[in-house]
Amino acid sequence: MNKIVTVDWLPDKKSKEPVYQQIVNYISRKISNGDWAIGYYLPPQRVLAERLKVNRSTISIALDILKSYGIIEGKSGKGTAIISNTWSIMISSNEANWGSYVKSGFFKENLPTIQLINKLEFVEGITRLGTGEMSPKLFPKEVITNAMNSLTPKMSNLSYLGPLGLDELRETLSHRLKSFGINASPSNILITSGSLQALQLISISMLKPNSKIFCEIPSYINSLQVFQSAGMKLEGITMDSEGLQYWNMGEDMKCGGVSSLLYTIPTHHNPTGIVMSEQRRKEVYKFCSRNAIPIIEDDAYWELYHGEKPPKSIKAMDVSGSVLYLGTASKSLAPGLRIGWVVGPESIIERLGDVKMQLDYGASSLSQMVLNEVLINGSYDEFLIQFRTILVRRKNRMLEALNHYFKDIAKWNNPTGGYYIWLDFIDEVPVEKLFNEALNKGLLLNTGNIYHVSKTNSLRLSFAYVDEELINQSIKELSRIVRSLV
Amino acid sequence: MNKIVTVDWLPDKKSKEPVYQQIVNYISRKISNGDWAIGYYLPPQRVLAERLKVNRSTISIALDILKSYGIIEGKSGKGTAIISNTWSIMISSNEANWGSYVKSGFFKENLPTIQLINKLEFVEGITRLGTGEMSPKLFPKEVITNAMNSLTPKMSNLSYLGPLGLDELRETLSHRLKSFGINASPSNILITSGSLQALQLISISMLKPNSKIFCEIPSYINSLQVFQSAGMKLEGITMDSEGLQYWNMGEDMKCGGVSSLLYTIPTHHNPTGIVMSEQRRKEVYKFCSRNAIPIIEDDAYWELYHGEKPPKSIKAMDVSGSVLYLGTASKSLAPGLRIGWVVGPESIIERLGDVKMQLDYGASSLSQMVLNEVLINGSYDEFLIQFRTILVRRKNRMLEALNHYFKDIAKWNNPTGGYYIWLDFIDEVPVEKLFNEALNKGLLLNTGNIYHVSKTNSLRLSFAYVDEELINQSIKELSRIVRSLV
Repeated sequence: MNKIVTVDWLPDKKSKEPVYQQIVNYISRKISNGDWAIGYYLPPQRVLAERLKVNRSTISIALDILKSYGIIEGKSGKGTAIISNTWSIMISSNEANWGSYVKSGFFKENLPTIQLINKLEFVEGITRLGTGEMSPKLFPKEVITNAMNSLTPKMSNLSYLGPLGLDELRETLSHRLKSFGINASPSNILITSGSLQALQLISISMLKPNSKIFCEIPSYINSLQVFQSAGMKLEGITMDSEGLQYWNMGEDMKCGGVSSLLYTIPTHHNPTGIVMSEQRRKEVYKFCSRNAIPIIEDDAYWELYHGEKPPKSIKAMDVSGSVLYLGTASKSLAPGLRIGWVVGPESIIERLGDVKMQLDYGASSLSQMVLNEVLINGSYDEFLIQFRTILVRRKNRMLEALNHYFKDIAKWNNPTGGYYIWLDFIDEVPVEKLFNEALNKGLLLNTGNIYHVSKTNSLRLSFAYVDEELINQSIKELSRIVRSLV
Repeated sequence: MNKIVTVDWLPDKKSKEPVYQQIVNYISRKISNGDWAIGYYLPPQRVLAERLKVNRSTISIALDILKSYGIIEGKSGKGTAIISNTWSIMISSNEANWGSYVKSGFFKENLPTIQLINKLEFVEGITRLGTGEMSPKLFPKEVITNAMNSLTPKMSNLSYLGPLGLDELRETLSHRLKSFGINASPSNILITSGSLQALQLISISMLKPNSKIFCEIPSYINSLQVFQSAGMKLEGITMDSEGLQYWNMGEDMKCGGVSSLLYTIPTHHNPTGIVMSEQRRKEVYKFCSRNAIPIIEDDAYWELYHGEKPPKSIKAMDVSGSVLYLGTASKSLAPGLRIGWVVGPESIIERLGDVKMQLDYGASSLSQMVLNEVLINGSYDEFLIQFRTILVRRKNRMLEALNHYFKDIAKWNNPTGGYYIWLDFIDEVPVEKLFNEALNKGLLLNTGNIYHVSKTNSLRLSFAYVDEELINQSIKELSRIVRSLV
């Protein structure tokens, strides 16, 4: 995908300086100050002429001069590319193109679809049918503002905190976790800037580059680069209605002493909504303990059950300290707080805390204080009760719409908790094309291939973000688009 | 430094289970759940016997059993070490000791002194004479709580934000930076979780492992592992009273095409307090532009001038986009907000934003909203006026005390801004010993060697954190300790 630069400037036709010279100056300034990077493309000459309101011949002269400077270059069939600037000398002295520049540094780029989604999510007028976030309209304004109001009189500082985070919050969480059957003292708990940071910390501070990370097929973790950036490989394991088919890990584990780890979302799985059964949890824990495979249990959705409570977390049965448990306030309260927590053995928590101090010197103290307030004054639990009802209502609307518009062309589950409905098309649907077509109609989709390369015929639908009134009509519209493609 | 585990348990002497068996169970549980890591040491048998209130022979039996299990091992002259647990199989299958375990993963440990300081800072009753943080007593409570109060009625959500951070805050900063002579549109600004994260982002997303980072001797950056963890080398450049002696970079730059970059704190330098002169800024900028060395300008202290305004930032003279400028609210308002910003060319800002989304999905939205409120309602600038006066008063107290107690044994500067006084001892003082002796007397010091290996005879003093009433007596006490060592 070529990156085309944005031209938001017009030459001054009354100036004494020739227009072609003004264009040369404008373009070289944008390139030399790095706004336009190596490997980006200029718009085609015709488009450029229209934008700048000049003749095509003027553009032609200006581009010839820039070519003679060696800072742009015509690429046959691809347009005019930027090939040199100040940063390029630093960043990629031998291979001066945008592709190699973004590969500089340890960190991989986000997947192109994810980058696109990250940006499009902030474009007005787009209906987000797959977003893993509660609608801003569901924001528990009173819960948060009451907490802020009761916090302000007693706030004595906003200082740096110790490596593990706010003591009071860790006390509160330690207490709360006990009610879920998890025994964790405050020294077993590290506060992170969201669960994503917890994964990042584990990846960069504990694992070797060739480690193997087992995960479900499909899995949310496939949409991230967190382990891949650190040189680890994801290895998908199939699921059934009871969860991960752990016995399929057998063969792979034995090959050549590579260390491995299991990343799992046993409850209200992202993206499939599957809940691992109690029996399967026991077996997975036993299997991993016997084979010395540590488990990362991501438990972002446990509290968002729609009816019956799900089985206790795997961490609750952990006597050997081999489960690192991740919790977060992002899915059940407010993502913008950016607060999560890792629960694990002290030695691991200390190591992760030491690295966290080097990454960002701790999560926002303000966010931690507000979250602690919300947890201790009981309003969090009250909100959860409401929020569950809302989720059920939204889910039912979406299921109804699916029954109405998709019955003959797809299959889906009825999740017992969380945000997501996983939809498989019966016949083959080109999902990349679907993504683009839907976007043209203002619908942003999370296609299955984000969560596993093999899932090219599926969608992750979310009933948490989209406006409730829009659910029916956007599912209807989506059905129309799908039908036009098959 | 051996890590000795903490034993906070007593056997139940009334139990039917033999006491030695209880001890075996306790120790294996602590080890198997990972609370006690590989390579940690048990307390000596005598100490263990005292703590557990049992005979030494009982300890001896218990340890023999544990040794037979292969989970502890006597190391001659060093005590009894832990040599195996669940995590160890994963983390360091061949080299089972704590040292190699913490080296697993991409990230280096913090320096031992820094780890110690990070922890000791949260111990009660310690006087922190070198801490780079404003005293919690100076917390601008009204400024922050007023902002929170005026924010709550208009808060409509706490959602995830786009890759660059809160639009309103970037607008406000763009406007504010103009008054410092820096032209930056919101698309040139990325909000980070503090300046430290900005450095982290630059290090992991843009630089090659063998890059060379020039910095001042001494420099704050030496106390961090941010570049070293990513495989880069720090190369110190000497300073004079006008700042960095850039001409000394000459020789090193040429050797073998290694890409390099300059990290500098030109204004109220940490740790020396030096302000780079305007002339020197021009020369440094010109020199770096000519040699295509990008500059990271860390400007955390600019606004904390004590009297006259310092020269404009290097970024203000940047026409080629080769300066990445770092700002933060941590030193001038409240560290616990954890908000900083990077200003640079759009292509670089986009790349850093993409990686930030992978690290933690953005800084706290709440912190960003509060900071924006404080900036636009004018209370930030009002607070700065007060804060500068307070800093001057605290500095003068410290200078007076130094004049009184250190005149014959040390030299120091009178900084024109920021937090720090840099003190060089005239005769040699063993600073590691000084650090420990001072700690025994309840004084926590930041010794010079944290900021450069060669600075073994210096201290960074800070007048920002210590209680004002304690300045005189702690400097007096420090003088007494120093004199007892030389």
